[in-house]
Amino acid sequence: MFLAKIYVTLKSTVNDPQGRTVLGGLKSLGFSTVSDVRAGKYIQIKVAESDRKRAEAQVEEMCDKLLANPVIEEYRFELEEA
Amino acid sequence: MFLAKIYVTLKSTVNDPQGRTVLGGLKSLGFSTVSDVRAGKYIQIKVAESDRKRAEAQVEEMCDKLLANPVIEEYRFELEEA
Repeated sequence: MFLAKIYVTLKSTVNDPQGRTVLGGLKSLGFSTVSDVRAGKYIQIKVAESDRKRAEAQVEEMCDKLLANPVIEEYRFELEEA
Repeated sequence: MFLAKIYVTLKSTVNDPQGRTVLGGLKSLGFSTVSDVRAGKYIQIKVAESDRKRAEAQVEEMCDKLLANPVIEEYRFELEEA
């Protein structure tokens, strides 16, 4: 059994309106040291698979097929034995 | 200058409809080994602060005030020198 921690972010060249909105909110709350905000998704998935290589391949396929939009997003993930 | 990587997740006792929807999607794509999905937010923030302790305190305050809803969410973060 593995726990996959997946981080999906917009590519750095893609405009991030959610991040810009958060930045505006932080500034208006008085956080003047904040300069750049990027917002993304964090997904935890339990995979019932004993082999790390196979689990990795599966998570990669999940990201490509459903979790991330490869046109505008990139992803990385970690596998933890659970 | 620090780069804060912030992970906001729903508390484990809180229902996660987004996660359940993703789980359903993965199952219907044929990923039968997937058993539990939790969805959350991932936020990267640049903080123009030279002292790590002060940067940490600021990021914590940002999370408490704006980025996470302490009633239903929990957060953790890492600070990287950037």
